[in-house]
This record gives sequence, C-alpha cells and structure tokens, in this order.
Amino acid sequence: MPDEMVMPAPADFHVHVRQGKMCELVTPQVAKGGVRTAYVMPNLVPPLTSTDAVLTYKAELERLDPSIQWLMTLYLHPDVTPEEIRKAAKAGISGVKSYPRGVTTNSNSGIEDYGVYYPVFKAMEEEGMVLNLHGEVPSDPEKNISILNAEVHFLSHLKKLAYDFPNLRIVLEHATTSNAVDTVLSLPANVACSITAHHLYLTIDEVAPQPHHFCKPLAKEPKDRKALQEVIKSGNPKFFLGSDSAPHPLSSKIPNLTQDGHSVSACAAGVYTSPILIPLVATLLESFGALDQLQKFVCDNGRNFYKVPAQKGQELRLVRTSREEGQGIVKGTLKGEDGIEVLPFWTGKKLEWEIVN
Amino acid sequence: MPDEMVMPAPADFHVHVRQGKMCELVTPQVAKGGVRTAYVMPNLVPPLTSTDAVLTYKAELERLDPSIQWLMTLYLHPDVTPEEIRKAAKAGISGVKSYPRGVTTNSNSGIEDYGVYYPVFKAMEEEGMVLNLHGEVPSDPEKNISILNAEVHFLSHLKKLAYDFPNLRIVLEHATTSNAVDTVLSLPANVACSITAHHLYLTIDEVAPQPHHFCKPLAKEPKDRKALQEVIKSGNPKFFLGSDSAPHPLSSKIPNLTQDGHSVSACAAGVYTSPILIPLVATLLESFGALDQLQKFVCDNGRNFYKVPAQKGQELRLVRTSREEGQGIVKGTLKGEDGIEVLPFWTGKKLEWEIVN
Repeated sequence: MPDEMVMPAPADFHVHVRQGKMCELVTPQVAKGGVRTAYVMPNLVPPLTSTDAVLTYKAELERLDPSIQWLMTLYLHPDVTPEEIRKAAKAGISGVKSYPRGVTTNSNSGIEDYGVYYPVFKAMEEEGMVLNLHGEVPSDPEKNISILNAEVHFLSHLKKLAYDFPNLRIVLEHATTSNAVDTVLSLPANVACSITAHHLYLTIDEVAPQPHHFCKPLAKEPKDRKALQEVIKSGNPKFFLGSDSAPHPLSSKIPNLTQDGHSVSACAAGVYTSPILIPLVATLLESFGALDQLQKFVCDNGRNFYKVPAQKGQELRLVRTSREEGQGIVKGTLKGEDGIEVLPFWTGKKLEWEIVN
Repeated sequence: MPDEMVMPAPADFHVHVRQGKMCELVTPQVAKGGVRTAYVMPNLVPPLTSTDAVLTYKAELERLDPSIQWLMTLYLHPDVTPEEIRKAAKAGISGVKSYPRGVTTNSNSGIEDYGVYYPVFKAMEEEGMVLNLHGEVPSDPEKNISILNAEVHFLSHLKKLAYDFPNLRIVLEHATTSNAVDTVLSLPANVACSITAHHLYLTIDEVAPQPHHFCKPLAKEPKDRKALQEVIKSGNPKFFLGSDSAPHPLSSKIPNLTQDGHSVSACAAGVYTSPILIPLVATLLESFGALDQLQKFVCDNGRNFYKVPAQKGQELRLVRTSREEGQGIVKGTLKGEDGIEVLPFWTGKKLEWEIVN
C-alpha cells in the first residue's frame, strides 16, 4: 500500500455552497477539501433560473475563492426557455439541474412533468449543455412511493430522456441504489452518474438514529452501498464524484421544539463533506479495496464526461495520516459569522489520508 | 360519527416505564393515557432476569400508581431456567420477553439462539406463560440485513417457534410490516401480534427527518402502514394494542456533540405515547375508518389472548375534543426531577378525542 499519492486536479461535480453568511463560511472549504473544479448547484432562494442570476452568483464565488474553477448550473424551471439556454451556453454555464418538486432542500420550484421541457432539452443538446437530474419522484403513499423507493421509481424517466435525447449528456446525480447503478450501466454513453462520498459509507442503519446522516436521497440497504462501491472498483468511466456536500446550520439538523411547545421541527436533509472531501474519498475507497481507482473517480471520469481537462500545476498530493493517537480525527463544527455553525461528516472518525499543501 | 364513547378498561400490552427518576415521571402517565392494565417490559439495567427482581420492580410500580393492574415479564436470558419459570408463574408473572441481541434499547443481554431456550419454552407452555418476541434479527451488512428488513428476516423464527410449541402463547411485538401481518394471520391461534399507535401513523418518510420518530422496529413503507391499519379494520382477534411507549430523556433523542468535538452521539430508539395513548389510538383509528374497532383493539382482543378480563367500574369514557382553536393539541415536554424531560409523540398535533375523568 502506498503512503503517498499524487493526482491531477480533483473535481467535485455536485456541490452546494449556499448563499449569504453560509456561503462565506463554506466556499473556502471546497479548496481545503482538495477540490480544484467545483460544479455548483443552483437551488438558492430564489432558485437561479436566469443566466444573469447565475453569473452574479459565480462572481460572488470567484470573489470568495478565485483559486477554484467554478462550473455553474441553471435551475430547471418555466423561466428557463430555449432562448435562455442559448444565452447561458454563450455565457459559459455548464448545465441545468432538475429537481422534482418538493423532494429536497429548496426544491419547491422543481418540475412536475418533463414533457413541457423537451424544447429546452433540445436546445441544451444542441448547445452541448449537461442535464443534471435529481433522480427521485415525490413520495405518494397511495402508490407506496416513499423516500426508500423514490429513486427506483425515477429510473423510467431517466431511460426515456436518455433515448429521446441521444446527444444530450445526462447525469443521474447522487445515485444510492443498485437499481440506479444497473440502469446507468445499461444506458448509452450520454448517461453518466455521480456518487457521493457519504453514500459509500452510510446505510439506513447509520441514518435512522443520526440526523446528521439524513440526506436526500436517503442511504439505502447494504446491497445498495455495495453496488456503488463495486462500480467504482470496476473503474467504469460513467461514474464519478459528486459530493452533494450540503451544509445546513447545526440548528437545522436537530429537531427544535418551539417555545409554545406547539411543534417540533424536522431536520434538514444534507450531509456536509467539502472540508475533508478528497481525503475522505481516499479513506473510503481504500476501505473497500478501490484506492487504485481514486484518480479515475475524483478526476478523470468526471472531467472526461464534462470535457473539463485538469490544468497543469493543480495536482493534489495526499499522504497517509500519522498512526499517533488523535491524528487525522475530524473535529467539531465550522464556525462562521452570526453564530452560524456547520458539522462536517465523519466528525470523530479518522481520515487515513491528508492533503500536503 | 359518535361524539362520545364508553369502553371497558383499556389495556396496553407493551409498555416501558423504565427505572429511577424516569420511572417516577412516566409511571403515572400510563393511567393518564386511559390505560387500566399495563404489560411492563423488563429491559432495565440490569435486565430483570429473576422472579425476585421482577417482584421488586412490580412493588415499585404499585407504589407509584396502585390504580393500574401491572402485568410483569421476565427478560429471556441464561439466568431464566425452567425452574425460574415455575417460580415466576407461581408469583403471577405473566410472560417472558425475548430481545435478539443488540437490536434495541438495553438489549445487549439479548438472545442469539432460540434452541438453547427450548426447555424454558416448554416450561412456559406448561405454566401458561406468554412469550413476547421482539421480532427483529440483528443487522448484518454481509447478508444485506438492515433495520429495514430485520423484521421480515425474523419471521421464520416466529413460525418455527409457533409450530414447535403449539400450546405456547406467543406475541409478535410491535409488528411493522405487511409480511409480519400476513405471517401472524397464517399461524395458529397460539400466535398473536401487538401493534403500536405510532406505527399506524408513521412511515419512513416521517422517521428519517425526525429522531423523535425513530424507534425499533423502524416504521417502514406506506404499504406496511396500510397492512397494519387494514388488519385492525378487519377486527381480527389476533391483533391488539401494545404501545411500545418508550420514553427517553430529550437529550438522548437528539445528537450531541462532545465538548472535545471528537464524537456525535446517535439518537435513542423509542417513541413515547403513554400520556395520550387511548385518545391517540381513537384519533388514528378514526382517521382510517376503524373507530368501530377501537374497543376490540384496545381492550377485548388483548384481554382475551392474555386471559385478563376487564374489571367492572374501570370503563373509559372518551369525548370528541372541541373544535375551538388550540383544543386537543399535544403540547411540549413532560418535566421530572433532576431536569429530566420527555417529549410525547404527536406534540403540536391535535387529538380528536379526550378522556372524561
């Protein structure tokens, strides 16, 4: 086993850096986690549905950390017309993210029916933009659709889009099930799939007692985690890192009783991995015997699909953490202005790798 | 729809009243929830593995609330021998509770193999004691066993016990799946099944974002909840109320970060329903059109199976809560000594029924 690794510039093809004070706190953490290229989600309040709004946001991110290559997305919405797509493509926006309505954080403006967006997808195909799919359908008790099978029920939509737009690059984001992996494998090369770090570790057993592990899509069964691990181990080029690192204030990740005792809040969905991302992925891949696929997973596969080559001089060097007690342990919360605090995933656990600056 | 109901003394055939300060706080709540007979779980620290320990605990409960008929259980354990069973039966202990090792609160002394207990079960069968099964197998990622399918994997054990001991009364406790309901229906009359109030309302969608809804067994899919509702609606005599009301201090139900930032605690498993139990069950049964089965579910079915008839003069009267705003809303925490606080299920929601004292 190696004690040191060097790889071309890692990329995170799915990251939330939020807005306001939270954005100021978490944006610099992306580079600290070893990422050089970050593909940024548009689910702000209000969602980023225009080229101008995306460019304003991009300028803010560049101000906060000019060292990162920020790749931007639009939020699929009735405001996003084929004309807006052409404008966005000219402005260098990389893709469009689709949220089925109501399935995750700030998805209330999400779509209900893909049919009405076919002219938009056509324009995206022509302009070479990428379609990023949050692959879950909304829960529906009458149809026995819950957060457990919401992803599996989405896969027919993915297949239809893949065949209806054979030249549109489509990413099934943050896959969590063996069915999703199998479906992506069965589809043509225009369909790829991002996998988070945390879904390589969590199953439902670790999520149910721990709201800090609650995210959408929910981590599923051991066989599902195994399928994600195995497809990375196989080196298949369709699968790459998209962390879905999704910070929430600590206070939103625990249930809060209102002062009048009239209600208890639910916990926000999201796992925050940015500050430790590449060392975490290295630690996890090594744990299931896939360390030799690290470069493909965090760099080559995603960059090839997105056509965003690694820049020279942006290599990342990792070394094994010390075996001394307490070394490599992820500790406590990140604290920002106005009392904002965010708890990273893996707190209290040891990272086997660290970044050499 | 009626505005008033009177029924014979309700019984809760599965309740945790804990020990120490928590016991002092929650024990009087059993009667407040409308229950006259309570079947008490033995998973204390240390577990109740002797007749003497159970009798000491019973005396404490009688001191705290002499109005309740306390039915007691032993914790299945190597200390529980056939001789101990005969002693327990003579002392009026009703049953023996089996916890597979490690699946829930205070189950570290739980069993790993039923075979070694066959002489114990034989003695129970002869003495007319009831076997109460926590029907989950421990999680095992290699076998894809998680808290989602732990109950389904247990059902083969239930079947084997039911046929190996045809005269032993067995209760599958707190069933949560359609498979469990089907299995109980398929087995002879010596097998019955308790159902909690909260599993008639929750699915995985309500549990994942809310640790106050986290319990073992976990609430499952909408089809599973539907199966529980439907079998109650059918009036089948094998199914009755066992609330599994399981109080935990508020601080144990949320994740706590240690001061050194080295670890985050997991949340305790348990939903606390005792203070509102019978009004809650009435509210839920009415919501799915089963109010006419209320008496069977909370009184007749369980009492017939356990052979514990309702006493005269212990009837419970319920009336519909006022339609005025704020009436019937469950509010905030119960507070005991030493700063102990417990949050009841249904906080912030309206009960459609209330008890007339």
